[in-house]
Amino acid sequence: MNLDIRFDFQRRGRIGLIEAIWGADKSIDQLERVSKEVLEKKEVVFITRIDKEKAAHLLEIFKEGRFIEEANCFIIGENLNKFSTNKKVAIISGGSSDLAVTLEAKLSLEIYGVSCQTFIDVGVAGLHRLFSEIEEINKYDVLIVCAGMEGALATVIGGLLSQPIIAVPVSIGYGVSKNGETALNSMLSSCAPGISVMNIDNGYGAAMAALRIIKRIC
Amino acid sequence: MNLDIRFDFQRRGRIGLIEAIWGADKSIDQLERVSKEVLEKKEVVFITRIDKEKAAHLLEIFKEGRFIEEANCFIIGENLNKFSTNKKVAIISGGSSDLAVTLEAKLSLEIYGVSCQTFIDVGVAGLHRLFSEIEEINKYDVLIVCAGMEGALATVIGGLLSQPIIAVPVSIGYGVSKNGETALNSMLSSCAPGISVMNIDNGYGAAMAALRIIKRIC
Amino acid sequence: MNLDIRFDFQRRGRIGLIEAIWGADKSIDQLERVSKEVLEKKEVVFITRIDKEKAAHLLEIFKEGRFIEEANCFIIGENLNKFSTNKKVAIISGGSSDLAVTLEAKLSLEIYGVSCQTFIDVGVAGLHRLFSEIEEINKYDVLIVCAGMEGALATVIGGLLSQPIIAVPVSIGYGVSKNGETALNSMLSSCAPGISVMNIDNGYGAAMAALRIIKRIC
Amino acid sequence: MNLDIRFDFQRRGRIGLIEAIWGADKSIDQLERVSKEVLEKKEVVFITRIDKEKAAHLLEIFKEGRFIEEANCFIIGENLNKFSTNKKVAIISGGSSDLAVTLEAKLSLEIYGVSCQTFIDVGVAGLHRLFSEIEEINKYDVLIVCAGMEGALATVIGGLLSQPIIAVPVSIGYGVSKNGETALNSMLSSCAPGISVMNIDNGYGAAMAALRIIKRIC
Amino acid sequence: MNLDIRFDFQRRGRIGLIEAIWGADKSIDQLERVSKEVLEKKEVVFITRIDKEKAAHLLEIFKEGRFIEEANCFIIGENLNKFSTNKKVAIISGGSSDLAVTLEAKLSLEIYGVSCQTFIDVGVAGLHRLFSEIEEINKYDVLIVCAGMEGALATVIGGLLSQPIIAVPVSIGYGVSKNGETALNSMLSSCAPGISVMNIDNGYGAAMAALRIIKRIC
Amino acid sequence: MNLDIRFDFQRRGRIGLIEAIWGADKSIDQLERVSKEVLEKKEVVFITRIDKEKAAHLLEIFKEGRFIEEANCFIIGENLNKFSTNKKVAIISGGSSDLAVTLEAKLSLEIYGVSCQTFIDVGVAGLHRLFSEIEEINKYDVLIVCAGMEGALATVIGGLLSQPIIAVPVSIGYGVSKNGETALNSMLSSCAPGISVMNIDNGYGAAMAALRIIKRIC
Amino acid sequence: MNLDIRFDFQRRGRIGLIEAIWGADKSIDQLERVSKEVLEKKEVVFITRIDKEKAAHLLEIFKEGRFIEEANCFIIGENLNKFSTNKKVAIISGGSSDLAVTLEAKLSLEIYGVSCQTFIDVGVAGLHRLFSEIEEINKYDVLIVCAGMEGALATVIGGLLSQPIIAVPVSIGYGVSKNGETALNSMLSSCAPGISVMNIDNGYGAAMAALRIIKRIC
Amino acid sequence: MNLDIRFDFQRRGRIGLIEAIWGADKSIDQLERVSKEVLEKKEVVFITRIDKEKAAHLLEIFKEGRFIEEANCFIIGENLNKFSTNKKVAIISGGSSDLAVTLEAKLSLEIYGVSCQTFIDVGVAGLHRLFSEIEEINKYDVLIVCAGMEGALATVIGGLLSQPIIAVPVSIGYGVSKNGETALNSMLSSCAPGISVMNIDNGYGAAMAALRIIKRIC
Repeated sequence: MNLDIRFDFQRRGRIGLIEAIWGADKSIDQLERVSKEVLEKKEVVFITRIDKEKAAHLLEIFKEGRFIEEANCFIIGENLNKFSTNKKVAIISGGSSDLAVTLEAKLSLEIYGVSCQTFIDVGVAGLHRLFSEIEEINKYDVLIVCAGMEGALATVIGGLLSQPIIAVPVSIGYGVSKNGETALNSMLSSCAPGISVMNIDNGYGAAMAALRIIKRIC
Repeated sequence: MNLDIRFDFQRRGRIGLIEAIWGADKSIDQLERVSKEVLEKKEVVFITRIDKEKAAHLLEIFKEGRFIEEANCFIIGENLNKFSTNKKVAIISGGSSDLAVTLEAKLSLEIYGVSCQTFIDVGVAGLHRLFSEIEEINKYDVLIVCAGMEGALATVIGGLLSQPIIAVPVSIGYGVSKNGETALNSMLSSCAPGISVMNIDNGYGAAMAALRIIKRIC
Repeated sequence: MNLDIRFDFQRRGRIGLIEAIWGADKSIDQLERVSKEVLEKKEVVFITRIDKEKAAHLLEIFKEGRFIEEANCFIIGENLNKFSTNKKVAIISGGSSDLAVTLEAKLSLEIYGVSCQTFIDVGVAGLHRLFSEIEEINKYDVLIVCAGMEGALATVIGGLLSQPIIAVPVSIGYGVSKNGETALNSMLSSCAPGISVMNIDNGYGAAMAALRIIKRIC
Repeated sequence: MNLDIRFDFQRRGRIGLIEAIWGADKSIDQLERVSKEVLEKKEVVFITRIDKEKAAHLLEIFKEGRFIEEANCFIIGENLNKFSTNKKVAIISGGSSDLAVTLEAKLSLEIYGVSCQTFIDVGVAGLHRLFSEIEEINKYDVLIVCAGMEGALATVIGGLLSQPIIAVPVSIGYGVSKNGETALNSMLSSCAPGISVMNIDNGYGAAMAALRIIKRIC
Repeated sequence: MNLDIRFDFQRRGRIGLIEAIWGADKSIDQLERVSKEVLEKKEVVFITRIDKEKAAHLLEIFKEGRFIEEANCFIIGENLNKFSTNKKVAIISGGSSDLAVTLEAKLSLEIYGVSCQTFIDVGVAGLHRLFSEIEEINKYDVLIVCAGMEGALATVIGGLLSQPIIAVPVSIGYGVSKNGETALNSMLSSCAPGISVMNIDNGYGAAMAALRIIKRIC
Repeated sequence: MNLDIRFDFQRRGRIGLIEAIWGADKSIDQLERVSKEVLEKKEVVFITRIDKEKAAHLLEIFKEGRFIEEANCFIIGENLNKFSTNKKVAIISGGSSDLAVTLEAKLSLEIYGVSCQTFIDVGVAGLHRLFSEIEEINKYDVLIVCAGMEGALATVIGGLLSQPIIAVPVSIGYGVSKNGETALNSMLSSCAPGISVMNIDNGYGAAMAALRIIKRIC
Repeated sequence: MNLDIRFDFQRRGRIGLIEAIWGADKSIDQLERVSKEVLEKKEVVFITRIDKEKAAHLLEIFKEGRFIEEANCFIIGENLNKFSTNKKVAIISGGSSDLAVTLEAKLSLEIYGVSCQTFIDVGVAGLHRLFSEIEEINKYDVLIVCAGMEGALATVIGGLLSQPIIAVPVSIGYGVSKNGETALNSMLSSCAPGISVMNIDNGYGAAMAALRIIKRIC
Repeated sequence: MNLDIRFDFQRRGRIGLIEAIWGADKSIDQLERVSKEVLEKKEVVFITRIDKEKAAHLLEIFKEGRFIEEANCFIIGENLNKFSTNKKVAIISGGSSDLAVTLEAKLSLEIYGVSCQTFIDVGVAGLHRLFSEIEEINKYDVLIVCAGMEGALATVIGGLLSQPIIAVPVSIGYGVSKNGETALNSMLSSCAPGISVMNIDNGYGAAMAALRIIKRIC
């Protein structure tokens, strides 16, 4: 075990989830060491918030690794204990700029073998875009809604559909909506009942919340 | 002229609007004195944000005065220079708790002889309530939208109708939406184009913004 | 239909939930009128955030009403379309001061016939209190965690148990924790994966989020 | 249709405005694809918040495109359904540093064939600069006021002229005025009646608000 | 000397000013004790932010005391070491609601024998009110400007006159201007050069800043 | 054990401290029940943030109780396991308005038998007041510094003395210093090295931090 | 006159001060044009907040220009109407990191021919450094105090000396003192009487405030 | 002595600590000059928050210097007056991203000859990691706890161990936990008694606070 990183290998045993590796504040060296440890234990390496440069370094070391640039994620190996479920998740986003968060959620679910579908750029300013998909979206068991700006998409969907809804504010915008705080507060204040909210840009966390629901259902 | 209050009698000449009297921070005595001055000049007295107690005092002095409690407004006399226009304003609100702000806007418009209609409690959590009125709302020339909580109503209307839209955030809510800041920021961040915004609870200001538009049209 | 309140009677049809009535900003008169409408439609009246004084007035009008003071809730009639489910919810709170929020969540679930159990005052400063209950808590299908101050309880439970966790920050505390914003941000920032969060003091909303999950499971 | 961008082609039909493309968070690839789609539908491509580098790429693909660097805007083609109106807009700015916002508003109006004039650097610290232009400004039908720092220009103009005034706070300044929040709050708090406000730096939105007014007048 | 209050009797010797007694957080008992000590030392007792109730108690004890209710101040005795100066101060306020702050500044100056004049309710929304007084105001040596809302008055005066200007933001307003923070930030961000600013509602402090200037001039 | 309160009786065993009871958000009934439980276990009842009214009720039930009004504290019984130490604590405060916080800290120490002395109203605006006591203060082993406003007292003492310093920001002040946040941030930003800080008004916590130090020393 | 910059040439006539040119948000081209205009009118060009790169460009155009890098200022020509005064200003700073702000103030004063002296790095953590200079500082007529972190220096000086004190918060620090807001609020909250405050890093403004005082004295 | 830096050489005499040099806002030139002065006085040079580039420059000048990159610290020479103590400090951190802060604290202690041990990545999401070390941690005399995100680690340790605990919030995280403010507020709000808190990322300060405690004990 390295002195400075203690990977939580027992997490799967306790709560059925494996630890993802937060790439943003780790050095290449730290990422390499922790990845090797994880692979030795036959677990999948899933690094989020990793940039192009760090990914290139890792690719040289781990030839079998995959860098998914649009999602800022890096994956090595495969999860050998996937969920066996027919439940599926819809990930709906308000704009085309929310792509990275949306894809981070999607990858996080797919690693566990959970089927999911994205519905992108169906923002509230043109409701017809959402309405033309609403029947399709209703076929999914859990809904993850990603939106920046004023985040009204979560409220509109929450008023129309009955599934569990996990809202993810996105740090897209300018002026008062910069950094995603307006979307966050708007989602927390939603007048539609029973929408629960994740931290800004936390696509990974939304996927984990969806997995907690699905895990309990299977 | 009293030493401590200088009513802006020239305002009508400059910008076509008369000064309303902000009642919240004035003493009964100040309100009495300024009202008398205004009446002497044959202008209408329009006091906003006045509470029950102050209003009761004023009613004893100005028997012809009217206290509209739900709007926290007090009116003495009549505006002799009303607008002559067939343009009309719709005031739409997201919840039944926005009533005071909605009515302050309504009274402010009626003093100038501008016709207006309220559409109350058509919040976004149940879109059908809005959709059943949308055709009727579309007949109006200027739209004032009052909403608390996450303020998504302004965005939805802004995506559906083409009129000038003046959004008024309302200080209704709790937790992060307390005080109306979430509604304010949400309206400013709206992904629907061309929505302009007033200060929190500023129903009077929204009416004045509508009058500036109507005045220019007539 | 009253002019100023439009109860969302279609909500049950759309999303399976009925509208609760927010009592804090409504007048006695508004509460009376909307309650009568709701009762006429054979729906249950469920008023949240109602104070003692308003409740006393309503009790005179609706003799069969029940005021649950510790939860600031008022109920008239019964929900005739309860959920039929054997799933149950645990509501865990960090301190004895979170009682009102905890009970609001509990009542909101019971109206739908969902069984739930409270685990009160098991805060993190004395972990043994939580540990002595953790096995029992693990028997429940959805966990609602209410905490004020630094809100660490949600993280600790999130690291130990695998169920869906809905965290409710509570506006208990002083200095920087006053108003619940520290608990809110702490819960959103949790290093335990997949915890989703409600607005401050939103016990009702947490219950609705739990119902969305349970409804999908049945 | 691309998977990740759904251009709102119906917007013109609904509200008479076309969608502008937010360039800041889109990749070159996304911008290229959406531009091609828009051109195919015979609509004008109007990209805001686009930087030099992205613009250079687009210029290679769309030879007929125009990059207006001072405004951070990129235009391809022409709007075939301009407004036919003799109404015109004045865009007034408080300092020479507000140029980008001012020009974004100007371009947004010109695309619709609406005539407008800029009055730049007429800030309140030297009132004579404004007074020497006030008579000229008064000839315009709608006023857009852009200002950073303390944003007092909107209030002064609002007290002198009767037109609709759309205030745009600008993110110019340092210390407490950095990011434009002081200008925003100052404009929202204006003691001049009926000034409505846009998000910080939202020149485009101010133009759309002006178009909503002008559209209703024609 | 009481155990819990140490009046700074040496302050006059060090910086030429005497300590005022902050009345808001002191008990009647504390106020009585410190007043007696101060009177014994032949200094003037000057209590600020004292409410009606506490003042009534003190009046029973100190028959020669004066309660100036509009300024929330209480004075016992007289300052025996007044300034001997012909310099004078103008105190200008933007609205009639700023009266308490304005009068606190005025009393604070008069205790030192400095002549001052108030110019009340000359706010920027009707510039003519200010312009009709500007020549008179220019005769004063130091200007104190009190304003709430967006605080633009300080900037306009700062652009017109060359005296030292001490700006006092006032906690008048609603929504974003509530508590005076918008006025404070606006004054700090003023585009007029050389305006210095006091804490919100700090009329006393503004007077002390003026005295520091005048003291140096005499 | 009551259903809603679980007193942490094991705390003394774990960390040597007993739980204080936070009185602000508890009902009389809750306070009575928990007090009885604590007394049964032969522990001292120490209630903080309790108001006059609640205290009066408790005094009727617990005749031997003591209400220390200036500190908002209520004590029943005695701590039978006091510290045996000759170490002592100085509690220094910047103004006479910090009294309640200062006394809460003092009582909290005395319950454990730790000797302490208060040095009140030695604020930085008149440094001589502090300098005349500094030699005496230097005799104490741990220093607790309470200050509101700009909290500079902690920095000045931190630059002069070598003891452990625990700074307590106090919610005294107005405008930007209201609520104690300026004092808190100022203390955290202190340019004197090694000053640690408690939450606003947390006199009790400062005493506990001092006890942790003293306990380790004994 | 350029279309986009209107230099306020009348400012000297109105308030005795000349306009400084804010370099941070202007292009090289704008800076060149406005500089030429100003020089043509025989006024001094004084540019603040200009970086190395822009300065190098200007130096090629204006050979006689001077770039004072430590102050981020650029000067061309000379002020032909200096003040004739024997009053002088002390500029005192708390740390060596405040240098740029301190020097901006110094240059701004020297352009008007006002004598000034800097006292650098006399922060409060080591009071002896200040005390060894206090007698010397007392010889100056106006004091400008620059400090970052917790800004306590202004309070300590304000309690010791009687001159007009203009406090400038500096954006030095980390964590809660980052950006200078803690220093700003601390200075505004000072318990020393009569300290007035400028915007964060506004060394230029402090100099102008000092000039307003000195101008009135001469 | 340089004009712009006054090293506090007397600090050791007053409070037993030597001044560390804040490297972030100083130029290479300033760092060189102050280092030479300090070395001449036979004191150790300890520079914090210094980046790679500045360190490389200094290494050329001071061959005997040591740059500890993971801690952003630079040390020249040795402290000749170390503490003689057998007390030791544990530095516990919640994640592997807190390394720089943790190491800054460690170096700061080692310079004084105080023994310390780091316990890294024992965050609360996997409590077993902490529990497996808790017995070992309990052997240390003072505990420094570094954590980002929601900072719950300090509360959990504070509920388990009795030593003095100094909590350091770390600016690790994203969304609402970005910049460390959530960790800061969470630590200040801790429901565990007697935890005192440092500014965000202030590892150095935490070490100084520990030294103040240890110094008093020896």
